[in-house]
Amino acid sequence: MRNRLSILLALLLAPAIYAAEGMWMPQQVPQLGDELRKMGLQIDPNRFADLTGDPMGAVISLGGCTASFVSPEGLVVTNHHCAFGSIQHNSTPERDLITDGFLAATKADELPASPGSRVFVTTKIEDVTSRITGNLSAKLGDAQRARTMEKRERQLIDECEKPGGVRCRVASFFEGAQYLRTTQMEIRDVRLVYAPAEGVGNFGGETDNWMWPRHTGDYSFYRAYVGPDGRPADFSKDNVPYRPAHYLKVSSAGVKPGDLVMVAGYPGRTFRYRTALEVQNAREFTIPTIIRYGTDISQILHEMGKGKRDVQIKNASRINGFENTLKNYKGTLQNMNRGVITQDRTDREAKLAAWIAAEPARVKKYGAVMNRLDELSREFNTTRERDLVLNYLPRSSPMLAQAQRVYRWSIEKTKKDLDRAEGYRDRDVPTMMSASNRAQRTFHVESDRAGLRYMLEEAGRLPAGQRIAAVDQAISRYGLEGFLDRLYANTKIHVADERKRMYEESKAQLDARKDAMLEFAAALLPLSLADEEENKKYLGASSRVRPLYLEALREMSGGLLSPDANGTLRISFGEVKGYEPRDAVEYEPQTTLSGVISKHTGEGEFDAPDALLEAARAGKTKEYEAPHLGDVPVNFLSTNYTTGGNSGSPTLNAKGELVGLLFDGNFEALGSDYLVDPELTRSIHADMVYVLWIMDAVDRAHHIMREMGVAPKY
Amino acid sequence: MRNRLSILLALLLAPAIYAAEGMWMPQQVPQLGDELRKMGLQIDPNRFADLTGDPMGAVISLGGCTASFVSPEGLVVTNHHCAFGSIQHNSTPERDLITDGFLAATKADELPASPGSRVFVTTKIEDVTSRITGNLSAKLGDAQRARTMEKRERQLIDECEKPGGVRCRVASFFEGAQYLRTTQMEIRDVRLVYAPAEGVGNFGGETDNWMWPRHTGDYSFYRAYVGPDGRPADFSKDNVPYRPAHYLKVSSAGVKPGDLVMVAGYPGRTFRYRTALEVQNAREFTIPTIIRYGTDISQILHEMGKGKRDVQIKNASRINGFENTLKNYKGTLQNMNRGVITQDRTDREAKLAAWIAAEPARVKKYGAVMNRLDELSREFNTTRERDLVLNYLPRSSPMLAQAQRVYRWSIEKTKKDLDRAEGYRDRDVPTMMSASNRAQRTFHVESDRAGLRYMLEEAGRLPAGQRIAAVDQAISRYGLEGFLDRLYANTKIHVADERKRMYEESKAQLDARKDAMLEFAAALLPLSLADEEENKKYLGASSRVRPLYLEALREMSGGLLSPDANGTLRISFGEVKGYEPRDAVEYEPQTTLSGVISKHTGEGEFDAPDALLEAARAGKTKEYEAPHLGDVPVNFLSTNYTTGGNSGSPTLNAKGELVGLLFDGNFEALGSDYLVDPELTRSIHADMVYVLWIMDAVDRAHHIMREMGVAPKY
Repeated sequence: MRNRLSILLALLLAPAIYAAEGMWMPQQVPQLGDELRKMGLQIDPNRFADLTGDPMGAVISLGGCTASFVSPEGLVVTNHHCAFGSIQHNSTPERDLITDGFLAATKADELPASPGSRVFVTTKIEDVTSRITGNLSAKLGDAQRARTMEKRERQLIDECEKPGGVRCRVASFFEGAQYLRTTQMEIRDVRLVYAPAEGVGNFGGETDNWMWPRHTGDYSFYRAYVGPDGRPADFSKDNVPYRPAHYLKVSSAGVKPGDLVMVAGYPGRTFRYRTALEVQNAREFTIPTIIRYGTDISQILHEMGKGKRDVQIKNASRINGFENTLKNYKGTLQNMNRGVITQDRTDREAKLAAWIAAEPARVKKYGAVMNRLDELSREFNTTRERDLVLNYLPRSSPMLAQAQRVYRWSIEKTKKDLDRAEGYRDRDVPTMMSASNRAQRTFHVESDRAGLRYMLEEAGRLPAGQRIAAVDQAISRYGLEGFLDRLYANTKIHVADERKRMYEESKAQLDARKDAMLEFAAALLPLSLADEEENKKYLGASSRVRPLYLEALREMSGGLLSPDANGTLRISFGEVKGYEPRDAVEYEPQTTLSGVISKHTGEGEFDAPDALLEAARAGKTKEYEAPHLGDVPVNFLSTNYTTGGNSGSPTLNAKGELVGLLFDGNFEALGSDYLVDPELTRSIHADMVYVLWIMDAVDRAHHIMREMGVAPKY
Repeated sequence: MRNRLSILLALLLAPAIYAAEGMWMPQQVPQLGDELRKMGLQIDPNRFADLTGDPMGAVISLGGCTASFVSPEGLVVTNHHCAFGSIQHNSTPERDLITDGFLAATKADELPASPGSRVFVTTKIEDVTSRITGNLSAKLGDAQRARTMEKRERQLIDECEKPGGVRCRVASFFEGAQYLRTTQMEIRDVRLVYAPAEGVGNFGGETDNWMWPRHTGDYSFYRAYVGPDGRPADFSKDNVPYRPAHYLKVSSAGVKPGDLVMVAGYPGRTFRYRTALEVQNAREFTIPTIIRYGTDISQILHEMGKGKRDVQIKNASRINGFENTLKNYKGTLQNMNRGVITQDRTDREAKLAAWIAAEPARVKKYGAVMNRLDELSREFNTTRERDLVLNYLPRSSPMLAQAQRVYRWSIEKTKKDLDRAEGYRDRDVPTMMSASNRAQRTFHVESDRAGLRYMLEEAGRLPAGQRIAAVDQAISRYGLEGFLDRLYANTKIHVADERKRMYEESKAQLDARKDAMLEFAAALLPLSLADEEENKKYLGASSRVRPLYLEALREMSGGLLSPDANGTLRISFGEVKGYEPRDAVEYEPQTTLSGVISKHTGEGEFDAPDALLEAARAGKTKEYEAPHLGDVPVNFLSTNYTTGGNSGSPTLNAKGELVGLLFDGNFEALGSDYLVDPELTRSIHADMVYVLWIMDAVDRAHHIMREMGVAPKY
């Protein structure tokens, strides 16, 4: 019998240096050179280490998504779903850009992206480890240690951002063994150039989300503008297209199974160095509980909206938020429950223990690490049920969430900027106020109350030792419904003007309002603060031991390890490859235009534009057909490991040319943030050949093609 | 662009003689010899024409299912789902054969099959065309013509069955161009020998029904017994195993992609010679309406059972019946709606018209055929809505169904046996009485009433010109609920003893009962009789023209055409082959034991027995692994065309050895009763290698293996 588990374990125990295995930091790539050449790389691996060179200098962040420059005039390509906010922002009932797409005939016709849109160009990465962890007094308590490190980070950021026009970050790598400060040029004038129709850019919609076979032309184009002086500037008619030092060359050659492909981008978060105990906690408690809360609250919101279109609209984005998380978490849990992840961690820790035990020097240095990590996990988890309830109370009630923010702000704003809680610094105020504005659109008192009732009932079921006093006291005094009656009868938190004033008031002024929701927020605050203190303690204690754990793993692996994703620029290597999702089923790694037409129903999520169907029918496809497919390629799969934040990433061929846009992972990849299964984990890309075919034969975006150096065929 | 439709049309227009295309009559096989040899056949094609020879003499009917002899002592192998009634019949709460399976240690331990179980061995096929259609007076009206033919059929059957121990049938081939009388030896003592656990025999259950990839060990073993004189006899301790003239040799060599496989069996019904207009009527009216009725009534029955286990049990088999039909019809409709079937018929008729027009002699002979067929269809369809309501009234109410049967029987039994309506002859009485007994278990007055209410409402919506007077009068007199009150308050049809008496009473006695349900049945009768008369007229008129239509098609095709299935012995040829269900998805044609283990959840429909898991874990598989799979094969796909009735059919390799048991078609094959799509239509087989592995390593049915001439390995 074939035994997938044994194949997988064999792979896991293979040499740790394996280029296809990680999300590599650019500066690590030269060390992978030999292997990359074996995989087919045709350019100098050292080039990837140069952030301002070719190709990495062309890889940019949109904050949450990745994109790349594709012309000397600041033309940017990313995913349709990454530009969706801007498409929506410019849509009106009369001019439905979402459905019909948009193509600016000239630069003058380009539309401002949605407010807050940014293009971040990474310009510098500096090692600041010693400035974060150096000279930390041994006498500091755990919480104090964490606070000190946080303050040092903030100072490093402030110092970096001072000149203006840049956004800086200090990111922890290898669980705190290394700290790097990244500097990004922050371009504030971003404009929408071209987006295909929804029936291309979001073809398949929610139904196909995470799924293969896929047929989505998930691409859109922006342009970055700067002031006439070449420096970032707010939107202005006088601004000029940004001229990037480098932009990617678009290839129309397509890909074939087995081709090397590289994905450069800004992956958000992975958990590949979490311990067995931490994985177990996620699998047994955190993820299932979050799924339960999300399912139940989303169900409540659905019920509230039944037959009421206005309520449906108000609750739509909240439901969307819960359901996105749900699909992701359910998939992760399902894949976790195959048991391979837990097995991997247990094996890794057993192997590490044996490796440590093999030499007295290792025992001395690392002997206590695993026990200490597990001890910390256990301590931190003693209040896990309560912590999650505290976390979900504001999620269940946007009104309570606003009350908590308002009240906390009245306290934090009296402190020095550097000393405030995270999220309450002066630089965070615009974000806080726009979140308040967005919340206004979601307020619906009955839904809010129904959600909060659900979480208060959950709080009521917490075990002894984890009770929330503020909740217990309120309910024992008024009863659940009585308390809810009071809360919602005596609050103005959902009144936009009132809340705006509240954000300006002092704590004393807020107290004087006797607003029931604010009072509840105030009553919850001591426990939240105590919780934050515990968290800081945990972080401080972790920072003493977790870097050692990674050092041990790195040493054991022979020196090269790819760090967990943390939103910084990375590159992953892989090949175009299908997979066998289950016995007797083979997924080929490329889909075709015929597949688009087969899926097309003419309604809902599967409604390809008439122009596409017409072009296909008319046989305007020959020049874009891949000989090995006999058809126009649409999407492809690769073994590259990617995660949220990678959306829109350029997919490069062995020559470093743009051949695709990463836009999703397969269902089996859910959970790959914990463990990559080389047999099943795949990334999904929009093939640039399809993008070019749509541009040429369907949307006639010929001037954009020419700007990218590609000659239209039709 | 690839264009599947054009590929398909090209195939359809290819030479009509194509062995892999039909369900061939045994006597046609020699004509396919050359092609079969090209496909890999290693035995003399003429052998298939000999019904009492090898292998066809070993292929038997169970009435609704197919089976085959696999030992000189009357051992019979068929599908688990074909023997399910017998497994269920012998199950008790203490001895759960359904869940655990059953293995008779010796012949003495074999269990009687469920009452009415039969083994039919085809012994003779005679052409009786001239005795059915010869000398039919031209003066006969259409209905009279149909009645005369029906009477001739009956006489042919009675004459054939007279000696006893045989069951005879006259079946129409090529739409009435040919009539054949089949004689089957009817073995009445059938015993259950061996059935695997439900977690093997029905692994995947409803979820996997019609699906690929599949992992079901759908097999069971019977043994046929006869009297000591070798003639069929009722069950008796003195009976002896039947010694068939031929039995199949079991191969343990397995199959590989590309291998020729042959399926011999008794397919029930296909519609491949239905006209475009008939297909259109099925697609636009009959199938969607049946789906609607089935969905709604099944929903009503579900509702009635909510929270009431006893009602659930009473309605279970009815719901099951509706849902089986639904899955099948929905799939058929979905595949019909791809449009290929209609296209095929239109093309065929256009081609035929051109062929006819090409020669004056053809015009003379066939010129009027198509028009006449379409005219008949249209006439017959003018009351299609009412006909379907009449058909579904008794389906919606088992009580009304029984009332109709009781009342009709009181009329028919006064006639001469040969003159009675179909289903009311003396030979039908046992079937009628056991149906009445089975109905008793399904009676639930409230469910019956709810179902009937639904269909009465449907009757109320019939268009003018198709009204049902009996319903209209009753409802205008009492109102719908009032009528239902009367019906169910004043009937004893659901009382077992009363109904038994009713079956014995005369029409006058029944009338005197003033039983409301019987009165409603009596009121519906005139319309039913008129409808039957219309039907006879249609059949009579069809019998004048439809054979000509087939003759034209046969002539056009060059002389060889495989007739529609009609429950008689057929053989189909194909190869082991996967398919591409949709863009970028490839289904391999063989599943494996690893796949069983992946699907195993330990509960519900995916609960493989511990002994299987244990044997797999222990590596007791080597001897059964296929080298090209590196695993034990479980199920395989082939291009053979099969349909209901083929279940349990032996699948033979190129040497005529048993390599599999056909047990299902793929989802894409739904609709293949109308048109086979060679790209998508597949049959699903249990691989004999898996059957043998289970017998050897899991169930230790070593003595049965030895009886089949296969040496156990463990």
